[in-house]
Amino acid sequence: MTAEILAVGTELLMGQIANTNAQYISGKLAELGINVYFHTVVGDNAARLEETLKRALNRSDIVITTGGLGPTKDDLTKETISKTMNRNLVLHEDILEDIKDFFAKKHRAMTEINIKQAYLPENSIVIPNPNGTAPGCIIEDGEKAVIMLPGPPKEMQPMFEETVFNYLKQKTGVILVSKMLKIFGIGESDIETRLMDLIDSQSNPTIAPYASQGEVTVRVTARCINNDEASEMLSPVVDEIKRRLGAAVYSEDGQTLEKVVFGLLKENGLVLATAESCTGGTLAGRITDIPGSSEVFERAYVTYSNRAKVEDLGVSPDTLDKYGAVSRETALEMVNGLKQKTGASVGVAITGIAGPGGGTEEKPVGLVFVAAYVKDKVICKKLELAGNRERIRNDACLHALDMIRRLILGIEQQ
Amino acid sequence: MTAEILAVGTELLMGQIANTNAQYISGKLAELGINVYFHTVVGDNAARLEETLKRALNRSDIVITTGGLGPTKDDLTKETISKTMNRNLVLHEDILEDIKDFFAKKHRAMTEINIKQAYLPENSIVIPNPNGTAPGCIIEDGEKAVIMLPGPPKEMQPMFEETVFNYLKQKTGVILVSKMLKIFGIGESDIETRLMDLIDSQSNPTIAPYASQGEVTVRVTARCINNDEASEMLSPVVDEIKRRLGAAVYSEDGQTLEKVVFGLLKENGLVLATAESCTGGTLAGRITDIPGSSEVFERAYVTYSNRAKVEDLGVSPDTLDKYGAVSRETALEMVNGLKQKTGASVGVAITGIAGPGGGTEEKPVGLVFVAAYVKDKVICKKLELAGNRERIRNDACLHALDMIRRLILGIEQQ
Repeated sequence: MTAEILAVGTELLMGQIANTNAQYISGKLAELGINVYFHTVVGDNAARLEETLKRALNRSDIVITTGGLGPTKDDLTKETISKTMNRNLVLHEDILEDIKDFFAKKHRAMTEINIKQAYLPENSIVIPNPNGTAPGCIIEDGEKAVIMLPGPPKEMQPMFEETVFNYLKQKTGVILVSKMLKIFGIGESDIETRLMDLIDSQSNPTIAPYASQGEVTVRVTARCINNDEASEMLSPVVDEIKRRLGAAVYSEDGQTLEKVVFGLLKENGLVLATAESCTGGTLAGRITDIPGSSEVFERAYVTYSNRAKVEDLGVSPDTLDKYGAVSRETALEMVNGLKQKTGASVGVAITGIAGPGGGTEEKPVGLVFVAAYVKDKVICKKLELAGNRERIRNDACLHALDMIRRLILGIEQQ
Repeated sequence: MTAEILAVGTELLMGQIANTNAQYISGKLAELGINVYFHTVVGDNAARLEETLKRALNRSDIVITTGGLGPTKDDLTKETISKTMNRNLVLHEDILEDIKDFFAKKHRAMTEINIKQAYLPENSIVIPNPNGTAPGCIIEDGEKAVIMLPGPPKEMQPMFEETVFNYLKQKTGVILVSKMLKIFGIGESDIETRLMDLIDSQSNPTIAPYASQGEVTVRVTARCINNDEASEMLSPVVDEIKRRLGAAVYSEDGQTLEKVVFGLLKENGLVLATAESCTGGTLAGRITDIPGSSEVFERAYVTYSNRAKVEDLGVSPDTLDKYGAVSRETALEMVNGLKQKTGASVGVAITGIAGPGGGTEEKPVGLVFVAAYVKDKVICKKLELAGNRERIRNDACLHALDMIRRLILGIEQQ
């Protein structure tokens, strides 16, 4: 079964908002095993909407539209689709009552134009909207169906969950289950080379790698009829990929590296402290983004100046003089000072040159030292990172997290 | 002139990511006065890409594609478009060198499949990619043009800014010049009400407010033929808006609040230190994201645990016992300790409950205290913030930055 998503709204074409509805609906359709081959966005324009709808109905079984169900003149989705599919709009008295109630509850006067929202195409299935005035509807036409939903995600999502998901599930009878393998430390093309034969020979499950922000995700997706069958199909493929990529695979369910480290700290009763120079607190920021991080995170020192490195972490001024702030020696003194000061069972120190300024021939932009310890084991790594300031800071954090992960797991550093 | 945006990537159709590239590019095209009537997303499928490209070229002047320029077999945008437009792919030796350099810098082996990225359609304009291995390109065909960009926003956006924007600007002849008024502390609907008559009566310049992440931007855009004309058109409108919104307008050129504070610190020879609890280093992270921040940023303490608050900032255990970590008293002791310890001329301390857990009836999620000083003037503010963890942490940072801005400027706090 195939579906496509058709969003209606000039605000999308002006770049005022992103089409997150398409993402949400696509994720749900993937779960249902419904193939999505196209997303389209058109403005509040009847002719372009009609043209796009006709094409969509021609090539897909299900067309899901979002937006354009509001009360104003701009909102023309329902009218245009009804006309295209030769359906009259009929007044639903019960919906009109709901709309009146909605306004009464909010102590606002219902305007005349809202009456329009109580009209739906004849012979359509109503999709109730508990969070707004615009109900949605499903128009069936032989084997095909058009499903209309409002644009605001807060209204659309509950309507999808409560009505549309079940409607579609009954229609398909098949589900898609994915494993998301997250990998750090091996590039996308290298991964592809190592998995080439698997990727080429598989059709179910499918294997698809993609890269973003210094990490690679390999999605393994099985099309099946239930979760047991899914596990049976996915396990051997996932195991084989892990065998080939080794400990660089840090998650099977799409977790971020910081969440994986958070989990390891928690499981092992460990507490983390960080000492950051070039990353400027972003590593602490990523860890503390996780709800409940206070259980595993003790504190951070963002020792941006040399003075702070000396005062807060006890780095020796001689070391700074002799080797510079960006050096293995300084990184190790930072992490040792952090350990002494905090007594935290896990610590990491980062010092480097994030650029764009500050680089020299000897110490170019991208040079970063990361020192880390778990209990009594201390290590230090020299990194030569590429990219802009943001990318270097991001990659330095990922390396630091991966070092901690490997230390806790007792596996080899890369 | 009309354009449409064609994103290529199965990960979009699977709902793994949202098509934020279309939003970004649409915003830029709006600035250029180029009309966008369609966004389309297709998967990594040559036939559907070809079909969609042909239709797009038929109805629009410019087609901008994102994604599918990677090294793997899935990545087929360049090949498919070249074939559709009857262009051969030719090897660019200089691009190959760049790719080799990119891998050398990362100390990773360049794999065979990356060579593919050094091939571009004949007679195309190269769009350099300083942050990745996939260059983009522009294929001109009579009055029409196809512009290919890679999918990762971190690569795509700089390429758009540095190359594509100017290319399109020259093509249109007309320029759009915008002032981006950034406002903190007044809500979007309030701003809209205060500016309603201006918004309704203007057609050139246009005035458009939009909200994101706790701040509001009012974009004032003049369509004109040169910069002098633009200034003349924009100045009176910008002045009137500033008169109505007052000191809540912190920038006229779209700068972030942290960049504005960075500039103020620098101009006034001031140095900042932060003490963060619930924001967990994200304020320090935002400041240090700015190149050159070491001139104005001294250090940060992320005192996540009570012990760290006592040890690093000298907060009294009695205060923590009596008033709790989230209290005016603790915030003030944090900032005073920060001042004593660092001697920094400007300091800010943040303590609060970011949620989702940890709230009580008396101290609900969203309760945050921010204390700040500039030289001898110390202030403290109680905030009651709404939204999820990320939003609360973000808003706490913005309030802290705005307090510092107002302290340095010697203007009233809101």
